[in-house]
Amino acid sequence: MNVIKFGGSSLASGSQLKKVIQLVKEDAARKIVVVSAPGKRSAEDEKVTDLLIGFGMKALVGHDFSAVLEKIIDRYQNIAEELGLGTEIIDEIRSNLDSLVKGNKNEPNYYLDAFKASGEDNNAKLVAAYFNQEGVPARYMDPKEAGLMVTNEPGNAQVLPESYEQLAKLRDSEEVIIFPGFFGYTKDGKVCTFSRGGSDITGAILANGIQADLYENFTDVDAIFAANPHVVENPIGIKELTYREIRELSYGGFSVLHDEALQPAFKSGIPVQIKNTNNPSAPGTRIMKERQLTEQGVIGIASSSGFSSIYIDKYLMNREIGFGRKVLEILEARGISYEHMPSGIDNLTIILQTNQMTTEEEHSLLIQLKEELCADSVTVEHNIALIMIVGEGMREKMYTMSKAATALSENHINIDMINQGASEVSVIFGIQAKYEDLAVKALYEAFFVK
Amino acid sequence: MNVIKFGGSSLASGSQLKKVIQLVKEDAARKIVVVSAPGKRSAEDEKVTDLLIGFGMKALVGHDFSAVLEKIIDRYQNIAEELGLGTEIIDEIRSNLDSLVKGNKNEPNYYLDAFKASGEDNNAKLVAAYFNQEGVPARYMDPKEAGLMVTNEPGNAQVLPESYEQLAKLRDSEEVIIFPGFFGYTKDGKVCTFSRGGSDITGAILANGIQADLYENFTDVDAIFAANPHVVENPIGIKELTYREIRELSYGGFSVLHDEALQPAFKSGIPVQIKNTNNPSAPGTRIMKERQLTEQGVIGIASSSGFSSIYIDKYLMNREIGFGRKVLEILEARGISYEHMPSGIDNLTIILQTNQMTTEEEHSLLIQLKEELCADSVTVEHNIALIMIVGEGMREKMYTMSKAATALSENHINIDMINQGASEVSVIFGIQAKYEDLAVKALYEAFFVK
Repeated sequence: MNVIKFGGSSLASGSQLKKVIQLVKEDAARKIVVVSAPGKRSAEDEKVTDLLIGFGMKALVGHDFSAVLEKIIDRYQNIAEELGLGTEIIDEIRSNLDSLVKGNKNEPNYYLDAFKASGEDNNAKLVAAYFNQEGVPARYMDPKEAGLMVTNEPGNAQVLPESYEQLAKLRDSEEVIIFPGFFGYTKDGKVCTFSRGGSDITGAILANGIQADLYENFTDVDAIFAANPHVVENPIGIKELTYREIRELSYGGFSVLHDEALQPAFKSGIPVQIKNTNNPSAPGTRIMKERQLTEQGVIGIASSSGFSSIYIDKYLMNREIGFGRKVLEILEARGISYEHMPSGIDNLTIILQTNQMTTEEEHSLLIQLKEELCADSVTVEHNIALIMIVGEGMREKMYTMSKAATALSENHINIDMINQGASEVSVIFGIQAKYEDLAVKALYEAFFVK
Repeated sequence: MNVIKFGGSSLASGSQLKKVIQLVKEDAARKIVVVSAPGKRSAEDEKVTDLLIGFGMKALVGHDFSAVLEKIIDRYQNIAEELGLGTEIIDEIRSNLDSLVKGNKNEPNYYLDAFKASGEDNNAKLVAAYFNQEGVPARYMDPKEAGLMVTNEPGNAQVLPESYEQLAKLRDSEEVIIFPGFFGYTKDGKVCTFSRGGSDITGAILANGIQADLYENFTDVDAIFAANPHVVENPIGIKELTYREIRELSYGGFSVLHDEALQPAFKSGIPVQIKNTNNPSAPGTRIMKERQLTEQGVIGIASSSGFSSIYIDKYLMNREIGFGRKVLEILEARGISYEHMPSGIDNLTIILQTNQMTTEEEHSLLIQLKEELCADSVTVEHNIALIMIVGEGMREKMYTMSKAATALSENHINIDMINQGASEVSVIFGIQAKYEDLAVKALYEAFFVK
């Protein structure tokens, strides 16, 4: 039995929904369908979720919301008309949206979360109606009825472990279950949404709950690519990835889907299949616990910018037990997290996200570091990009570093920092941000083309 | 005006002393001569300092020391006879050694320090006598008279800053000054020795005190070599080195002379010239504040083994502000220092010197780390060697890393860790210790032969 999740663009129009039903019909294992809210039909279009946030904000502060409300209903109506659905479902959606306005405004976060969640919830009802009309017995499943219980953290809800036992019962359904993504219910019966990748999280929770054989995640790309397609022309798709690899790639800046959203599935060792609704014959990407290692150690190249490095110099630093600890204590007291901390004999560098501090805060941090550590000098450099090469077993391949360093050197890119040593799955290079794209291209060329 | 220091092997015999006087005669700038105790004449020989330690230990505990005492006197006597010196100097030395036995045994560290220091002290007297006999006006200088004052730390004395003003007066001497290395006097008049490289320290202190133009350090090698000559056959000598480079090389395992011994000279920006007493025409190595950078970025390759790595794995580690700090706190509480701490997303590695812990202590540390940090796993690996490539401006050379990684990969050496990012003068590779020599050879080949 599979959980199959569709993203917003796969549900943005009636024609998209026809692809969805086709996919569900094709494979009897596809019994639990998780749906997002209708996404964009074109680059200029608006997502229903974004419209709902606007609607909720206006309702909360008492402004006139009728225009945005009609826009939302229009979106559902367009889909319903395209699919030849009756007016009943639209009446039901309108009545639901009307009822949201009457929520408890004294808890604005919960108030807004109910608006946001309705995008998925109403879409699930619409999809269920469509499936039944097309002769696919289907049932809309209310997360409350299913027992998907979450913590009281609007916008960042965490699943409660007791949910899994309840969700396991979904296995027994005769009908296809249409489950709205993105939210659950708190113990006191309030709607509460997940963080980013919200519908992906719902799918992963259900996959774990029913102990699915496979969690199929349908989106609008053919695969997770070995490099950012905005940087590298036609990068190859990755056929197989391990949990650890997707995690490193996500950290490195890959945004197809966030590894943490998939954790509930990973925890049970359930494989995740990424597929394209618009091109389902493409092999896609399978993410699993272990994979057959190929000759090629590296499977992907990620990058992100927006980092700074703080360089601290002090004679005899490495004799001073506690120096590194003091540095980290100063950062911690300011709530600043660091990415890497390479240390030499008399010096230490901290790589951190630049946006954690204003210019004033940074200035005051530098002064504090110099004074409290009696450092000889403390300097900062901005505009650093981290480039990551990722792959299980890469470390066993002796030529990896040689290949990577040669590719960068041939492109006249200086390496300011290398972090190899902690993760067995990745190596991180720090370079000047202006070379970020060039570095990704050069490394892609070296590992995937040559 | 130069300070010129001679090591033990340069003073081990009369024939060596003939070379020494020749060198002093050659250059009128060589006005301050720092001497060590007589060293080994051959590989099987004993150093006078080692004999003195044996003598002192026996005297301290009341054992019969006559045999070792005669051995010591014999060494001086042989030199004196070879040089045609009269018996007076030997009588003076015997009387000095006899007087040491009567020292205060209630302070055994100071008691022994006086024995150790006498090796240099008596040798300085002998050298002064020889210089005068040969028509070079020379004067033995008692460190107490010169004002070389040190802290009360037997075996690890530190110079007191007020010494420098006193030592500056040595500039005014008409005669060549023969100054015993290795020790000074405490404020309460006790002999106290320096740590390792003791005579090197004395020379550096005097160079600073008289604001020497040059500190010449005569030893028994032609130069500081670009790699360990026991590993690489006939490595090239390094002609010029900066203070930072010698510091990195010393850390990396180079033992010709320890950079910290030279600090008093470095502080004043005084250049240090390494020369071979037995081959003074060889250009030697000059160590200075700055040097002309050459095309070749790398100037030396160092290595040392005896390291372990502790690998800590915990899901979502990099979200946990304070994780690195907690790790370092645990180490600090145990008095353990670390060399490097590369960190990934979910993992962190600590590289440290293996000999800091017994097997039991290590075991208990691993358990503590796992429990207190709620880590998913904590594992340790032993037998790690650190290989260091060193050179000012090396980081500006993009091909450095590429060349190094290629050399290692071609020799099938896997890189477990790379530390590049803190120091601008070095890159450190962690590899399995069994490949240490092979790695040094491969890197030497890549940077100095090809």
